[in-house]
Amino acid sequence: MTNFSELISFIRKEINFSIKKLPIPDKPSYLYDPIKYALAAGGKRLRPILCHIVGRAYRTDPDSIMNISMAIELLHNFTLIHDDIMDKDTIRHGKKTIHHKWDTSTAILAGDGIYTIAQLVLSSIDCNYKELIKLFNEVTLDICEGQALDKEFEDLDNITDKLYLEMVKKKTGSLIAASAVMPSIYANEKSETVRLLRTFGECLGKGFQIHDDLLEIISDSVTMGKSLNSDLFEGKQTIMVIKAKQKFKKDWDNIISNSKITDLRKNVHNFFDDKNIIYETKKIAESYFMKSRDILKKLHHINTEELFMFVDLVENRSF
Amino acid sequence: MTNFSELISFIRKEINFSIKKLPIPDKPSYLYDPIKYALAAGGKRLRPILCHIVGRAYRTDPDSIMNISMAIELLHNFTLIHDDIMDKDTIRHGKKTIHHKWDTSTAILAGDGIYTIAQLVLSSIDCNYKELIKLFNEVTLDICEGQALDKEFEDLDNITDKLYLEMVKKKTGSLIAASAVMPSIYANEKSETVRLLRTFGECLGKGFQIHDDLLEIISDSVTMGKSLNSDLFEGKQTIMVIKAKQKFKKDWDNIISNSKITDLRKNVHNFFDDKNIIYETKKIAESYFMKSRDILKKLHHINTEELFMFVDLVENRSF
Repeated sequence: MTNFSELISFIRKEINFSIKKLPIPDKPSYLYDPIKYALAAGGKRLRPILCHIVGRAYRTDPDSIMNISMAIELLHNFTLIHDDIMDKDTIRHGKKTIHHKWDTSTAILAGDGIYTIAQLVLSSIDCNYKELIKLFNEVTLDICEGQALDKEFEDLDNITDKLYLEMVKKKTGSLIAASAVMPSIYANEKSETVRLLRTFGECLGKGFQIHDDLLEIISDSVTMGKSLNSDLFEGKQTIMVIKAKQKFKKDWDNIISNSKITDLRKNVHNFFDDKNIIYETKKIAESYFMKSRDILKKLHHINTEELFMFVDLVENRSF
Repeated sequence: MTNFSELISFIRKEINFSIKKLPIPDKPSYLYDPIKYALAAGGKRLRPILCHIVGRAYRTDPDSIMNISMAIELLHNFTLIHDDIMDKDTIRHGKKTIHHKWDTSTAILAGDGIYTIAQLVLSSIDCNYKELIKLFNEVTLDICEGQALDKEFEDLDNITDKLYLEMVKKKTGSLIAASAVMPSIYANEKSETVRLLRTFGECLGKGFQIHDDLLEIISDSVTMGKSLNSDLFEGKQTIMVIKAKQKFKKDWDNIISNSKITDLRKNVHNFFDDKNIIYETKKIAESYFMKSRDILKKLHHINTEELFMFVDLVENRSF
């Protein structure tokens, strides 16, 4: 596992280096200053790392995989910048969000610019380009649909686990799936295996998101690097919130309405603990990580060792 | 000219019909209701019409040209939706803008969705696809840069005609140029002629934009279908505003500061008339339309007759 941690650090460093080397112009600064700011802010880079791990399993050209992985990371950044406006989030990766540091107009344009640069980075791919760019845009539309469902759910009190997980599949699962699928398409993988890799990524994405929702409650905001309270105030759904509303509606409304801002997260954390919701939610996340491993076991013609370790890494993540 | 008008009406009808036939899903309605609303709102469709006129000059497959032209029109709509948020415009094509009818979040996501659908529409192209999608994204980045310059200029008092025209070349010229260039690339045109068509489109775009700025002052808002005063209040630059600031700074500041909202456009119109600024600006627009015709005269291997008539149409447009 130590060697694997070193490999991950190495890949992350290479990704950050390649992103830094992108020929982003200086002018107009209204467009490019916030784009550079967003790209330098870092992040876990889990999606492009997954891309490289799959690329390594296929022993395919790492330079092309780097371009695919950067396009995916840029797409991810574009959606974060626009989502942060919509969700009124003020902190991301421990730094002010663009709409908060500059303004909404600047953030809209920076997001548009990054997404366009993502497509231009992808346009250097020499193999199965048409299929890759089509998938890339289908995934973007999935993410838009996921974000739309997330916004629709904010006002609703009757969201089920099933509806929530459909939203997560689109908003988070589709891009993690694309990170596994795109290198396999580049490597001319047959469609049946591509489908398996997609399901693997969707399960991993669901596990990742449920785990992320848990961390938002359990961690402190310094570790997570984002504004934790805003989701609760905006009425964002998570598996935990859904369970609380389903089973303990009165108690839950009471906590949200009567907690002081400074006590809100602590009160919610204690509530979820008392009602066994944290335990139940952990079990659901675990089931999706197990499902993703079960799919990996079906892949016999590539070396899946690092992919199994990657699932462990995502499952054991504490920030 | 009557036959040409009929041709334009026919092409516009076909474009509107093809846009209406796009398989836009119903759900999630948060994403797709505003997208359908924007696409049904109409507009002049000048860019996709130019696409078809160039396609006709090359006698190339009209179905593929329809897809290219729709992608261009969708890209145009995406930029309008996001620009309307940034510019606080409340009316577009005689209807409420999306951020005004719904809210900013809805409009951001609708724009993102339309741009993604544009790329998916383009992905059905069977010839020179890679070159076309690369150009399409380069043009999008040009438009983002143009919008960024436009925003930067709002706060500046020393913008020159030259700087303004550089901004217009990116913000408006690049997409009109792409409308002329993309069908020629699809038809395997050689790069020298593609360059000529790009310059043709950029000149036509500059003429179009300057003419548009004039119409904003001369027409009434019912005819133009957009909110005319907002540009003046937001400090938007036009050739006319630049000339007023350069030569009559005190008088100009006085009109902007001391006009009642209801009198602003009338006062500005009279001022531009008195100071000969409308006449001078018309001359500049005219010069760009003439330049675009001069370039058409250099193209001998395609039938440019309808392209000349298209330039006349844009130049004589009164709404």
